[in-house]
Formats: sequence, structure tokens, C-alpha cells
Amino acid sequence: MTSVAYRFEVSLTGTPPAGGILAAGARVPIAGGAPPEFGGSAEPWSPEHLLVSAAALCFLTTAEWFARRAKLELRAFSCRAEGLVEKTPAGLAFTSVRLEVHATVPRGDTARANALLATAKKHCLISNSLRCPVELAADVDEAATPVAA
Amino acid sequence: MTSVAYRFEVSLTGTPPAGGILAAGARVPIAGGAPPEFGGSAEPWSPEHLLVSAAALCFLTTAEWFARRAKLELRAFSCRAEGLVEKTPAGLAFTSVRLEVHATVPRGDTARANALLATAKKHCLISNSLRCPVELAADVDEAATPVAA
Repeated sequence: MTSVAYRFEVSLTGTPPAGGILAAGARVPIAGGAPPEFGGSAEPWSPEHLLVSAAALCFLTTAEWFARRAKLELRAFSCRAEGLVEKTPAGLAFTSVRLEVHATVPRGDTARANALLATAKKHCLISNSLRCPVELAADVDEAATPVAA
Repeated sequence: MTSVAYRFEVSLTGTPPAGGILAAGARVPIAGGAPPEFGGSAEPWSPEHLLVSAAALCFLTTAEWFARRAKLELRAFSCRAEGLVEKTPAGLAFTSVRLEVHATVPRGDTARANALLATAKKHCLISNSLRCPVELAADVDEAATPVAA
């Protein structure tokens, strides 16, 4: 029996005196650097913002996967994500990530959507990779029009 | 006594039928979506690539912080970073991240640089936030010119 494994590769080229450029295949490169909180600037993406982004995006892509399988139409989706970094016995680390999600689904699909978002949270592989808890606050509303025939 | 806490906020706006746009203040927005491995495409940044990016970039910014403090000049820095995702008892999750770092420092500073990179690895707050181990393979070489007077 072979186990399933996926590899994700990124390159980072430093731009002295600070930060660097992140690249991964065909993706648009990202300028990265320390955030203002740690002596950097507010323009490059910081490691902390990228980690919070990974958590939010993983929640969305996982929800989309379950929605396709359940034939539930996510008509709109937005998320405000916040990560908290604190001193821990092991040094600075994320101690929580909170995802405030707003989704719009066809009329009559709210209950299914709430169940689906809870399932997506449980299966998000970024959440599963973090030491800290990821909290979900989901708010689902219904579009004026019902499920397409 | 108040504890130190830092908050990092990101917004994600879905672009149905798949993926979304990540934004955080003045930073250039990032198009995100599932990777090809999970039914997506190779053009948007995936959650998995963003997590590996966060680990690599945190290592760089932490090394820069210690280098400034030690007055050690990192003349060049590059990193190939790879994350492995596997099935675990809790579901799919990262099981390891490997950082292959190449740095160039002034002549005579190799030993100091190797010690500094090991320290940076220990203090990287993204590594401290992950369940899986982060492995560092560092390769330091010296520029032809010595430390500036």
C-alpha cells in the first residue's frame, strides 16, 4: 500500500537589505517582508498575513469542494480572517485564528449550507496543520431567487 | 502585567465559481484558489503554497532581524522551500516543511552566519505555529570581499 503524498514547492529570493520575492510556478510573484509590528513595512506581504491567508483560503476551497459534491451553489462568499500572535512558552506563535464568513446560497439552502461550512472547517488541511485553534463564525443568507431548476 | 499580542487581518472575497481575492491593507491583492492536486489550477496561489511561503519568509525575516542585531551582513539569500502534505489520523495535513537555504556573507563570517541561521530557525514564529517539523538545510558561502570597514 502506498500512502498519498502531495508536495508544494516555493522559492524565495532575498532582496537585501530586507524581504524577498516569493515564486511558485506560473503564479504571480509576491513581494514579502516583515510586517510593521516587527520592524518592517505595510506594503509587502508578511509571513503572518500569508499564514492567515492560507487558513482563510483553505476554508473557502474546502467549502467549494464539499459544495460541488453536494450540488449546493455558493453564490457569494466573503471572509474576514484574523490571527492572534502572542508570546508562548515556545516563543512568539499564533494562538488563535478566527474566520468570520459570510455566504449567500439559493433560497431554502441555509440549513444545508451551515452544515456544509461546519464540515469544511473540520476538513481544512491548513487548520489541521496548525497548533492553535481555528474558530469559525458563519453567517449564511439566502439569495432572493431559489435554486436553479 | 499585560501580555504582548499582535493581530494580523486579511480579507478574502470569493470569485464564484472558484477561489477568491486575498487583501490586507496596502498589500497587492493575491488571487487564490485550490491547487491542481485538489481540482484547482496552477495559476492562483493555493493555501498550501501560501503556508510554505509563510514558513520560508518567516525564516528570512527572522534571520534578517538577528543579522541586524549582530551586525552581520546577509549579502544574498535564497531559499527553496517544500512542504509535504499527507493523510494523517486527523485528515490531510502538512507532515513536514523543508527549507533549503543559500546565503552569502562577507569573507570570514561563515561560522557566525551558520549560528545565526540556526538561531533564526528556532525563533521563527511560523515554525512555532505548525504541528509538523520544519527542517533547515543551510549552505553559507563567503563573498570575495571582506566585511566593510
